[in-house]
Amino acid sequence: MLGNFSYKNATKLYFGEDSLKFLNEELPKYGKNVVLIYGGGSIKKNGIYEAVIEILKQNGKKVAEDAGVMPNPTIEKVREGVKIAKAHKADLLLAVGGGSCCDYAKVISASVHCDEDPWEKYFLRNEKTIEKIVPVGCVLTMAGTGSEMNAGAVITNRETHQKLGHGFGEEAVPRFSILNPRFTMSLPKWQMVAGIYDIFCHICEQYFSGEDDNVSDDLAEALMKSVVRNSLVAVENPEDYVARSNIMWAATWALNTLISRGKKTDWMVHKLGHAVSAYTDATHGMTLAAVSLPYYKIILPYGLHKFKQFAINVWGVNPAGKSDTEIANEGLTKMEKWMKQIGVALHTSELGVTEDMIEGLADATFVIDGGYKRLTRDEVLKVFRESL
Amino acid sequence: MLGNFSYKNATKLYFGEDSLKFLNEELPKYGKNVVLIYGGGSIKKNGIYEAVIEILKQNGKKVAEDAGVMPNPTIEKVREGVKIAKAHKADLLLAVGGGSCCDYAKVISASVHCDEDPWEKYFLRNEKTIEKIVPVGCVLTMAGTGSEMNAGAVITNRETHQKLGHGFGEEAVPRFSILNPRFTMSLPKWQMVAGIYDIFCHICEQYFSGEDDNVSDDLAEALMKSVVRNSLVAVENPEDYVARSNIMWAATWALNTLISRGKKTDWMVHKLGHAVSAYTDATHGMTLAAVSLPYYKIILPYGLHKFKQFAINVWGVNPAGKSDTEIANEGLTKMEKWMKQIGVALHTSELGVTEDMIEGLADATFVIDGGYKRLTRDEVLKVFRESL
Repeated sequence: MLGNFSYKNATKLYFGEDSLKFLNEELPKYGKNVVLIYGGGSIKKNGIYEAVIEILKQNGKKVAEDAGVMPNPTIEKVREGVKIAKAHKADLLLAVGGGSCCDYAKVISASVHCDEDPWEKYFLRNEKTIEKIVPVGCVLTMAGTGSEMNAGAVITNRETHQKLGHGFGEEAVPRFSILNPRFTMSLPKWQMVAGIYDIFCHICEQYFSGEDDNVSDDLAEALMKSVVRNSLVAVENPEDYVARSNIMWAATWALNTLISRGKKTDWMVHKLGHAVSAYTDATHGMTLAAVSLPYYKIILPYGLHKFKQFAINVWGVNPAGKSDTEIANEGLTKMEKWMKQIGVALHTSELGVTEDMIEGLADATFVIDGGYKRLTRDEVLKVFRESL
Repeated sequence: MLGNFSYKNATKLYFGEDSLKFLNEELPKYGKNVVLIYGGGSIKKNGIYEAVIEILKQNGKKVAEDAGVMPNPTIEKVREGVKIAKAHKADLLLAVGGGSCCDYAKVISASVHCDEDPWEKYFLRNEKTIEKIVPVGCVLTMAGTGSEMNAGAVITNRETHQKLGHGFGEEAVPRFSILNPRFTMSLPKWQMVAGIYDIFCHICEQYFSGEDDNVSDDLAEALMKSVVRNSLVAVENPEDYVARSNIMWAATWALNTLISRGKKTDWMVHKLGHAVSAYTDATHGMTLAAVSLPYYKIILPYGLHKFKQFAINVWGVNPAGKSDTEIANEGLTKMEKWMKQIGVALHTSELGVTEDMIEGLADATFVIDGGYKRLTRDEVLKVFRESL
């Protein structure tokens, strides 16, 4: 059953090999002051930076640069970015990069016309009202977070070892996002694989919650099957356009709220993964991968029906002659086999976690309701011990 | 592979048993003159009319009524509706009904500020530009057409025996749509079943085209499975909220352009069905049902790969030891069995078609490309003979 909900998502998406040219259709809709937001400079090596700058110039824009957005954007960086956007009287924030750049741009967008500190307002107090938004546009270079079509952002506070997410309202989604699968091909394979697991995990977080029969779960299964099938092609040949385009589009729909409509969601894997990231600065998708199976093995008995459905519908487990628990476990075994095939981290030790960090990781884990079982502290410790 | 495309759909959707109250959130966004568009008056029997009027009054709206929109709205009716909206200086067109009312409202919306005749401009010349739009809102009482979240409309010209569709631009989607599954329960079972087949057919039209592997087809299969599973529950117990809510949500996503992104589409079943409707005024979904299988049997050899995939992924056909053609045919056999179970029309004779109409039906059929095989006139005649 689908519960009560609302849905609106007005991001305009341009998808395909030729999609960058549509920046020419979007730029005239905004004033002349553009802040160009990007990361460590990889876009200067693959030609994307030059191509974007050229289009900005052709459209008569005055550009200020806000470079160096890190994979896990920090609140300190956000505070600098707000100053840049204010000083430039930004009419548009153009994020060119992956989900980190896009998340970061959304927080700047909501903070330019706000006197309060964004960490206090949005991440600690979870306040929903935004004074006035500076529009965000996105040229995506990595498939994973879905940030290109949602109103969420995750920011890290290195001082306090906190990595927190905030969901802004529907008015904060990017006005437009340009999705060119070829741009994602310049990434190292490790990053591609981390993005793929991030997508898969987003779907799992929304799927493994609630007992009800609903079309959102059918759509979730379709996206999971597509991600699994195409990821196996992409790890063999990262230049395979079919696989990379399907992965990019699946990523967008995995986290634009469609598959969570009318149902409960979990997000505990992200809470566990965020603790690992806050301690090690490890790649987001890999932290999720390393904690997923130990977590799912704990909650499986409480969500047996859904884990059985997952095994049959996503992994093609033949249920004949098996108990529900056997079917469900076989699904997780097949998931683990796939994770090994694509090469994600299965242990947090690969990401820099050491045994002496475990108590601290548990302290840094924000336990939430939503999944099939609320974790006790002992269970949180168990996840971190088993994922080591 | 996903080809190049764009996507934007800004309709705000309110879904659930309590969703009508959100009309109070939407109405203040528009001026005081509202045209209330509805059909044959069933909304006066089930209390929806009174509830809507009450909310309109509470919000201080001045209401003009445009009643009597027929199941296949005619261009003559559109011309009257334009006069009503003009005379009332409409700030909002509120369609309360099924897809017919919503389609009709969209055509009025695009025609109020237009000097030309809408039939000439939109349906014969297929012109895309709209002078100025009057916003449309929708309170949906029937699941089927998906009109609540798309920019399409189908209008019938009884004089010329033409039933033609037009796709307006993304700016013409309803500003908001209210989807209450309980409202759909007041429909006669025949209408519910016609709507269910309409949904299924929309998905098929987008699925049975192109040979490429893409996530749009994965999503299409998920929606088809959901519709089939829930329809079998709904025909047994039309009051089953789980089933009716899933069917209603699947209908919206079956035709809001998501599952056609990056791929070719067919729509030939609709062209064949429209000819039947234009001759008999039969219920849209039933005309589609009656012509589908004869059409699919003709194109099956040309799209064997996809019909095989359909059989396995949607209908659970076990492929072991069977040829591709056997697998594909078994899929259609299972589809036919399902159609009988839910009780759709499998013959156009049930809808009023007689043998002497067949040549005329072929004349009225607008043959298009897009599917696996462009039909010859002989093949069109064959479809109508076999569906009789």
